[in-house]
Amino acid sequence: MNRQLDLALDGIRKRLLEMGTAVEQSVEDATQALLVRSVDGFERVRETETKINRLQVEIDQECVELIAQYTPVARDLRLVIAAIKMTMDLERMGDQAMNITHCVKDYLKETPIDLSLRLSAMALTCRRMIADSLDSFLRRDESLARKVLLRDDEVDSERDAIVKELLEIMRKDSSKVSSGLALILIARNLERLGDHATNIAEDVIYASSGEDVRHVGAKPSETE
Amino acid sequence: MNRQLDLALDGIRKRLLEMGTAVEQSVEDATQALLVRSVDGFERVRETETKINRLQVEIDQECVELIAQYTPVARDLRLVIAAIKMTMDLERMGDQAMNITHCVKDYLKETPIDLSLRLSAMALTCRRMIADSLDSFLRRDESLARKVLLRDDEVDSERDAIVKELLEIMRKDSSKVSSGLALILIARNLERLGDHATNIAEDVIYASSGEDVRHVGAKPSETE
Repeated sequence: MNRQLDLALDGIRKRLLEMGTAVEQSVEDATQALLVRSVDGFERVRETETKINRLQVEIDQECVELIAQYTPVARDLRLVIAAIKMTMDLERMGDQAMNITHCVKDYLKETPIDLSLRLSAMALTCRRMIADSLDSFLRRDESLARKVLLRDDEVDSERDAIVKELLEIMRKDSSKVSSGLALILIARNLERLGDHATNIAEDVIYASSGEDVRHVGAKPSETE
Repeated sequence: MNRQLDLALDGIRKRLLEMGTAVEQSVEDATQALLVRSVDGFERVRETETKINRLQVEIDQECVELIAQYTPVARDLRLVIAAIKMTMDLERMGDQAMNITHCVKDYLKETPIDLSLRLSAMALTCRRMIADSLDSFLRRDESLARKVLLRDDEVDSERDAIVKELLEIMRKDSSKVSSGLALILIARNLERLGDHATNIAEDVIYASSGEDVRHVGAKPSETE
């Protein structure tokens, strides 16, 4: 029985990593588009989002069946509950990759603003947070998960700096209002991606230790 | 045993409604601030967000304990799983109410734009969606939940129309770039609130029928 439960839990882990890998690919495609100023990756982002949505429905169903069949307790139950929360975050991340591609599309139609390198640097930080949060889940590495939490503020302040700079540019040159807004929304989506990576890291800590670190000394969120 | 499980499930329902009522209050305070051009409600929104965050942690814990203690199956298990998903949506809605208050604060510092009535109308639609999604949960009214799903597109197109109008205003008058951005972000936060109400309605349908209606004919999301 326990052996079967362990196999079932490993199955859930593998499926979550499949979903996480799809999200990483999607975020990479979406953010690369801005750097290379090309729309080539867009169709793939859309296809990947459909795959991510399907995986969420399937994995949630597998988790419910696992609970009904094996009635896991303690750490095993926490893993399954964390898995259901993770699929919600990963699904939103797929949406955000789509949002970014929409914004990049809008941006490429408008007057360029020389800030794409700074945004790409922010994108890289977010992608590292996503990779580390998934790694911490794969290796059950609680300390790596806690490192992810620390990087959230960094991304927040980078977003604020970018928005401030863009508002200045938009005020000075009305021809850059649309492209400025597109970049502001990209920065906000990147920051949200960092938030979701943080949520996943919190789920990893919860699953392994039972400690719920959400909202511990929480500051009010300031992102959409 | 079953009687105890039923009591425990009712307890979870009551707690979710407590959380949902706090979210409704928070969204009302946040959106009223724009209409009355006053910052009086802000402190209450912040306090309510802290309460909402606490309720999420507590309710999730109660759900895990319920599963471990009573090993619910079928419809009962689906309700508990749906409850855990609902707390994630409700918690995000509390964040979005906070985001809206931040944007209203920014907006009130800048050159006013005569669009607050239109935004307030959009806010009213979103608040109705939230109220109906919580009602459908309370009354286990699957058909009301399905009605909520239908209103999502309405809110999406209203957001698009508002953003288009604001971009025009920002291009024409650079003194309105900051206030325009604040209103655009409010419109996007309202649309996200509608999305979360939709998620809750989907959870209600899942809990009562076992049918997972997420991503059925899903269009790519275009919000943060």
